[in-house]
Amino acid sequence: MSAATEGGANADAPLAAQRSHDAACDDPGSLAAWLRLALTEGVGAGNGRRLLAAFGLPGAVFQAPRQVLEALAGPRLAAALRQPSSAALRASVEAALDWARQPGHAIATLADTHYPQALLTIPDPPLLLYVDGNPALLQAEALAVVGSRNATAQGLAHAERFSEELSRAGLAIVSGLALGIDAAAHTGGLRGPGSTVAVIGTGIDIAYPSRNRALAQRIVEDGCIVSEYPLGMPPLAANFPRRNRLISGLARAVLVIEAAAQSGSLITARMAAEQGRDVFAIPGSIHSPLAKGCHQLIRQGAKLVETTQDVLEEMPRFARRAALPAQVFPGAADESEMRADDDAATSIVIQAMGHDPLGADLLASRCGLDAARLAELLLGLELEGRIEVLPGARYRRLG
Amino acid sequence: MSAATEGGANADAPLAAQRSHDAACDDPGSLAAWLRLALTEGVGAGNGRRLLAAFGLPGAVFQAPRQVLEALAGPRLAAALRQPSSAALRASVEAALDWARQPGHAIATLADTHYPQALLTIPDPPLLLYVDGNPALLQAEALAVVGSRNATAQGLAHAERFSEELSRAGLAIVSGLALGIDAAAHTGGLRGPGSTVAVIGTGIDIAYPSRNRALAQRIVEDGCIVSEYPLGMPPLAANFPRRNRLISGLARAVLVIEAAAQSGSLITARMAAEQGRDVFAIPGSIHSPLAKGCHQLIRQGAKLVETTQDVLEEMPRFARRAALPAQVFPGAADESEMRADDDAATSIVIQAMGHDPLGADLLASRCGLDAARLAELLLGLELEGRIEVLPGARYRRLG
Repeated sequence: MSAATEGGANADAPLAAQRSHDAACDDPGSLAAWLRLALTEGVGAGNGRRLLAAFGLPGAVFQAPRQVLEALAGPRLAAALRQPSSAALRASVEAALDWARQPGHAIATLADTHYPQALLTIPDPPLLLYVDGNPALLQAEALAVVGSRNATAQGLAHAERFSEELSRAGLAIVSGLALGIDAAAHTGGLRGPGSTVAVIGTGIDIAYPSRNRALAQRIVEDGCIVSEYPLGMPPLAANFPRRNRLISGLARAVLVIEAAAQSGSLITARMAAEQGRDVFAIPGSIHSPLAKGCHQLIRQGAKLVETTQDVLEEMPRFARRAALPAQVFPGAADESEMRADDDAATSIVIQAMGHDPLGADLLASRCGLDAARLAELLLGLELEGRIEVLPGARYRRLG
Repeated sequence: MSAATEGGANADAPLAAQRSHDAACDDPGSLAAWLRLALTEGVGAGNGRRLLAAFGLPGAVFQAPRQVLEALAGPRLAAALRQPSSAALRASVEAALDWARQPGHAIATLADTHYPQALLTIPDPPLLLYVDGNPALLQAEALAVVGSRNATAQGLAHAERFSEELSRAGLAIVSGLALGIDAAAHTGGLRGPGSTVAVIGTGIDIAYPSRNRALAQRIVEDGCIVSEYPLGMPPLAANFPRRNRLISGLARAVLVIEAAAQSGSLITARMAAEQGRDVFAIPGSIHSPLAKGCHQLIRQGAKLVETTQDVLEEMPRFARRAALPAQVFPGAADESEMRADDDAATSIVIQAMGHDPLGADLLASRCGLDAARLAELLLGLELEGRIEVLPGARYRRLG
């Protein structure tokens, strides 16, 4: 993490500020130089990385020959890069340096060893990230959990429970701090040691959406909020889909909880697939509009997920760590009951069999089961290797 | 369909019966000869077809040299085939011929042009089928609809509605006449011109399960019931999973509505996959034990199905015939409302745009939408080709 203190002293006079600024930018690898590059109008992740590839460090970009800059970035941007910093740009750089000096704040540049390794594997990592909270979480094994802002109560419960359980298994839960599924995912993630990372689409100093202000505060304390946007950047529509690439990019896989057709969560899933991340989706009723997006993803190849175990299976390092309580979901009780019914019926069948081969008709009358039900149980036993099927549809217990 | 009348006269005296029987079996391709072969103890679909492959017609099997029979079918079965028919076997053959003489009854042998063509593509077609009802349905394009006997009300409604709509689209609905999903599938199938076929696991003269007696009667009148088992065969556990191969075999694809893990419906789905049939499954809540089997199938590659259209898409001959009412399901109303919301918001966005490029922040303030919601709508418009995204996150209406 670049220390903000390299940015210069707390000079009061404009002239001192100018000197301080120039000195900082003279060190071509300083945070000030990174900020000057990132904050120059027209510089984005794409042309920013091209310039860095050509000149090495950001400070060197400003000293580069005009023709070379023009060839790489076009005449307008070349002119902007060769101009002395405007007062506005200098103020923005200083403000960012000031921000980064606050406790818990940091700015991680592409050159930083603390820049999230996972983002180096995506096609368009940002030049730098504003980080508020625990920066170690950006290096953690992470799962993105996303979904609708208008989620159902069931969807919110899923987001919270899956995130809590997966955080308990050690995964950092990444989401976008939106209302609905995102907020529930962060809340669940905060309950486990994996904690949570919020990737926001505004400046990191902007509280958006305001209803999540208290949650954001808890994330700053126990988790981490990151943004690639300059301080003060308001919520702009175009930034949100683009921000989604960082949600999937920071994670090893994306779990979509509830999503309408053609919704933002599907953008994240598409970006995840393009980045080589796994996509998981939770199915639901065919009558639920918020299951449609998940069903679409499953048809396109996303893994259908029913339990946290289904997620952990795809993350071998975590599967063995998971010690999930048996009754995570309210519905699990019904299922256990049904399994108990099956188990009871299976025991009756096994006991009725004894150890000599016998026909299913005799077995059915001994057990008091109808033929179709008995056939189901016998198949189960055969698949489990507990009985053997002999010619003439006779069955024998094994062991 | 072999005419039952070739089987002989209504002789009263035992001697006349014997003569009649022998005469019938002397015609090596007669229905009586087919029945004698199929009803000889130890002859099944597998060795029956091997014998027919060696000797051509069933009557020829009984005249074949002992050594050849032994080599093909083992000494015990060879001995049984070379014995004169026992009184019991003769009685069974006569009873079957009698049954086939009743109006609406028929027995279709492998050699028959009316034998279901679809079954000739599976590895183990039965030697003959007892048919009660409209035999033309056995040649129809068909979809198997199967699921749990202990289905939920929702599952039963799905089975009935999907089957009705797909029958209206022209597909014959094949199922197993069990309680639950099977019964609902037949009921729905009967409501459309595609009608329904029940493949049962008992003798065709056995009413099982008795609760479906009235349904079976309606199927005989408007649809068709088939069985490969001899008359009088009671419900035996071993026969049900085996019968399932005919349910999938008669169909082009299998739709699983609700199924527990390790249930009989999954056997049908496995057989369908082995037979090269498509498998479709309806998803449900992760808390529903009866969605587990469907979810398992989807993870194994079954197509996730939400609507009848999803099924028909895989059956191109039928897709264009389908004229489905818009409101098949109660839940469809909510979804239309949500889509209407989206449509309304999209119109607002388009109108707010005018025809000059503008930034999303201005657009958001004009529309009164939050940034994330606007981003979603803009993405939808971009994907639909209705707007263009210009550099600097400015948007322009196209057309």
